[in-house]
Amino acid sequence: MSRFLSERRKDLVPYTPGEQPKDMKYVKLNTNESPFPPSSKALKETKKAVGKLNLYPDPECKALTQKIAEMCGVDTSEVLVTNGSDEILNFAFIAFCDDKTKAVFPDITYGFYPVFADINNVPYEEIPLKDDFTINIDDYCGINKNIFIANPNAPTGIQISLADIEKILKTNPENIVVIDEAYVDFGGESAIPLIKKYNNLLVTQTFSKSRSMAGARLGFGVACSELISDLNTVKYSTNPYNINSMTMSAGMGVLSDNKYTRNNCKKIIENREFTVRKLEVLGFSCTESFANFVFVKHKSISGKELYLRLKEKGVLVRHFDKERITDYNRITIGDRKQMEFLIAKIKEILEEK
Amino acid sequence: MSRFLSERRKDLVPYTPGEQPKDMKYVKLNTNESPFPPSSKALKETKKAVGKLNLYPDPECKALTQKIAEMCGVDTSEVLVTNGSDEILNFAFIAFCDDKTKAVFPDITYGFYPVFADINNVPYEEIPLKDDFTINIDDYCGINKNIFIANPNAPTGIQISLADIEKILKTNPENIVVIDEAYVDFGGESAIPLIKKYNNLLVTQTFSKSRSMAGARLGFGVACSELISDLNTVKYSTNPYNINSMTMSAGMGVLSDNKYTRNNCKKIIENREFTVRKLEVLGFSCTESFANFVFVKHKSISGKELYLRLKEKGVLVRHFDKERITDYNRITIGDRKQMEFLIAKIKEILEEK
Repeated sequence: MSRFLSERRKDLVPYTPGEQPKDMKYVKLNTNESPFPPSSKALKETKKAVGKLNLYPDPECKALTQKIAEMCGVDTSEVLVTNGSDEILNFAFIAFCDDKTKAVFPDITYGFYPVFADINNVPYEEIPLKDDFTINIDDYCGINKNIFIANPNAPTGIQISLADIEKILKTNPENIVVIDEAYVDFGGESAIPLIKKYNNLLVTQTFSKSRSMAGARLGFGVACSELISDLNTVKYSTNPYNINSMTMSAGMGVLSDNKYTRNNCKKIIENREFTVRKLEVLGFSCTESFANFVFVKHKSISGKELYLRLKEKGVLVRHFDKERITDYNRITIGDRKQMEFLIAKIKEILEEK
Repeated sequence: MSRFLSERRKDLVPYTPGEQPKDMKYVKLNTNESPFPPSSKALKETKKAVGKLNLYPDPECKALTQKIAEMCGVDTSEVLVTNGSDEILNFAFIAFCDDKTKAVFPDITYGFYPVFADINNVPYEEIPLKDDFTINIDDYCGINKNIFIANPNAPTGIQISLADIEKILKTNPENIVVIDEAYVDFGGESAIPLIKKYNNLLVTQTFSKSRSMAGARLGFGVACSELISDLNTVKYSTNPYNINSMTMSAGMGVLSDNKYTRNNCKKIIENREFTVRKLEVLGFSCTESFANFVFVKHKSISGKELYLRLKEKGVLVRHFDKERITDYNRITIGDRKQMEFLIAKIKEILEEK
């Protein structure tokens, strides 16, 4: 830390991305990436973009915004495309939160929410999930705070219903409700249709998971046009060219091949069910996941030990050193071969115990 | 504006990027882009990245950081790669500025500095340039404020010397001095060597101009490792995967072809000198530019009128509706053919008057 760091940043604890060790080749099941490469149409479109890299990208991101709006069944004025969904989450904190109104989110959820709150000097409250990691909806009703909920939640994969989301929206009409749907394409139900009814709803999604574009940084938000306009004010005050030309083109390519995306999601869901069945036989309990990962604990091996032993054997999973979930690991669902390898290694570890 | 927009954002005036009209094909001399496509090596490297887009990019951006450090003759711990140089400028405001210490910059300079100050709730002061648009160095000596200077300056192209920068650094040891070198590769002199001597210096550069990568969003900052570490704290609290895989690869490709970059810069400098000679003959006065643009006013046609007439004739230049510079236009230096077209159109306009 330099002596020039502002007083207000001295206690900032940054987000920790999943590890990317390079000492050996790992089966990487720790950052919820897709095991499938992006649609071949992404490459085709991207090649065209590279030749014109000397020109700035379209700051309005018109063509891609149009295509996303069509996919979501909304108007282009109700969509903002961003540099990953992290960017639109941060924009929401910048635009709608301040030191006067608390932000709230579950105690066990995406670890970036408290970081975004801190860097934007927004006080926050973490509401404990129930013992089974489900949300107590009443905790979020009529609380007059800005609400951030990942649905399905991470790292649990557990989903809340649209009826419950409506209850939260209705009882907090003076506050923003952000539904972060990074993992919605693996069996979840999107709240996007509710933006027509609730002007306090922002739904965020990403191309990083179901669309195999984690490397490209592409996300978006859907809300009524007034909220999108506010978020655009923030965009043009921080990062007007937030989508580079290659990512824009790759996104267009991927969206022109929805069949490929849907088919990949189907495979992930099948592999998830396969993995859960196998793990349960081996003595694991799993939360009911609607995401491209499972959240599991074993009756006799600790979360930390399993994580470390798997790493020794060439499989990376994500362990969070956090009190309530230290017994658990979050395991990304890869292709069938990867999941079979995981199961085989877990069997070895349990036998060696 | 929605009723949810935070009180502290209600007066925010965002940055306005250069226009990108699509009604006809323009000779685009309004956003300081390079007229040359990026090195062919950029495409070669980028193609490889697209196939692996399903994986997150390296958040540490190791390979590219290493290559930039080599180019700058500094250690990798003294470099931070960012999403355009806009991102590192914003990071500097977030990390080192607050409501207690003013930020200062010239009244005529890059229009994003006051926006970054505003969005980060940092009070600022604009110090007037002299009548000839040069900086009065004494205005910046011993002022106990955080200082942002574009060198060469935009939109004037005028440069200050390293000796003057040292004077500013020495007399403000308790404050940060940011030297924004977006345009340094067109005949300017970089302050990067000074980071070894001054721990309060941050130098920022970009791949958008000399390296033909405006569409890819790539910039970087060079400073002592303590400052870089603070800026990294901000990066990991906002945008840990700030460089997408394709931009990273394109950057590696471009840096492996420095001869191409140098040759392009040489051509731009020659075209700048050609353009200035022609414009002076036509009755223009031009500031002494060390950048890839010229800043010019005519003795008998107003800045606004020239801008509008050129636009009608298919040439875009940048006019700023700002009191002290309303007589001027900023004209990007393109290839020889573009500059000849510009001169021909200006001749027509002057004859038609």
